[in-house]
Amino acid sequence: MAFVEAELTQDKFLNGRLLIRQPRTGYRAGVDPVLLAAATPAKPGQSVLELGCGAGVAILCLAVRVPRLELTGVELQSEYAALAQRNASENGQELNIVQGDLTQLPDTLRQQSYDHIIANPPYYRREASTRASDTGRDTALSGETPLSDWCDVAMRRLAPKGCLTMIQRAERLPEMIAALHGRSALEVIPLSARQGRDAKLVILRAVKGGRTSFILRAPVVMHAGAAHAQDGDDYTAQMRGILRNGINLC
Amino acid sequence: MAFVEAELTQDKFLNGRLLIRQPRTGYRAGVDPVLLAAATPAKPGQSVLELGCGAGVAILCLAVRVPRLELTGVELQSEYAALAQRNASENGQELNIVQGDLTQLPDTLRQQSYDHIIANPPYYRREASTRASDTGRDTALSGETPLSDWCDVAMRRLAPKGCLTMIQRAERLPEMIAALHGRSALEVIPLSARQGRDAKLVILRAVKGGRTSFILRAPVVMHAGAAHAQDGDDYTAQMRGILRNGINLC
Repeated sequence: MAFVEAELTQDKFLNGRLLIRQPRTGYRAGVDPVLLAAATPAKPGQSVLELGCGAGVAILCLAVRVPRLELTGVELQSEYAALAQRNASENGQELNIVQGDLTQLPDTLRQQSYDHIIANPPYYRREASTRASDTGRDTALSGETPLSDWCDVAMRRLAPKGCLTMIQRAERLPEMIAALHGRSALEVIPLSARQGRDAKLVILRAVKGGRTSFILRAPVVMHAGAAHAQDGDDYTAQMRGILRNGINLC
Repeated sequence: MAFVEAELTQDKFLNGRLLIRQPRTGYRAGVDPVLLAAATPAKPGQSVLELGCGAGVAILCLAVRVPRLELTGVELQSEYAALAQRNASENGQELNIVQGDLTQLPDTLRQQSYDHIIANPPYYRREASTRASDTGRDTALSGETPLSDWCDVAMRRLAPKGCLTMIQRAERLPEMIAALHGRSALEVIPLSARQGRDAKLVILRAVKGGRTSFILRAPVVMHAGAAHAQDGDDYTAQMRGILRNGINLC
């Protein structure tokens, strides 16, 4: 299984430092995987596993930001797994792609532990959402796998004091906290569309076995002004720094 | 048991609309119970139970804000229970005070359900904190009763669709979410000392049996400016409205 060449676009991330092929009509990466990479506190030489890597935007953004990482991505959908592999090689990055279900990882991965695990799990529960017309997009948006399973698999595959970094809709924060509370030190960064608005997304960091107290950060505000008022984007200076110049998110 | 008169001060809340006697050296109410009352969405005529009411600041602030509430307070420490009763009558409010342990409520309360439950539970775990020299203050600051018990008792005593409103340190949010997730609709309002700082406190609202999605509000910022730079208080306009003019908090 692979995408037909004419179905693919090639898109710039991090001000063109990363070029990603992705399907024109399937699941397409927005800013969320870029934010996920920006929030991942990986250091040069560490190992990183991405659960559900799609076309590879998040883990390849991380590779562009931090040198000499050992990168592994798991992806359920074979055509996206193949695309992630191609995107890695076209960007000169070594990325070990494993096609499979994250709840049934192959033995080679189950014998490994990782310094970092990153994930941008589907935002909608299958039963609660209307099925997208494109199957690949549907699977990426509304997964069959409960969010608690994503958390459980991540905690099992992390090294002691290893860190899980996830991005998810804010309204699913209780599911993640319930799954991770008591076995990791948690930190939440709310992401709000505009100043004063409810959080739309959250980034959650969970340090396996960590004992420090829960931290709720001040929100990162994505867009400037009270409402969309101009052509083009209206990102805040902080967001532009993250999306274009590879600034870390906290 | 009662406080000696000379041990008591009389303090103004809500711009003097409420006068509260409280012990000079024991547990003294700050802004937190005022914020708790401001965040409680009670309507005239509804019933309200406060768990751990202390000298009664929160529930009496609520009584000043919202007319014709049926007010009940539970307080473990008999001298504070007596003080709450006195503060109520001195402010012309009817308040039914029950002295006892919230995990062993008397039958009269266990046969009741309430439209609202409010609580400002001790901020520190007994085992994790240094004991305060004053016993009353110590019990108010670092309770023996796990936070999950406060949540459980509240959920049992709420009417269907009744609302629990709590104020607590932000770092204990995961304990509360773990206790309430799945049986209530949750909303969190972070309170930060200054713009851009981590949340210091949170207000959590939990609607019993509610099905709406979790909401993470934008923070309420307590103090203006980047650091304390003037004599007296430097509350934000929103906080002054809440503390002095009885404005609702969201």
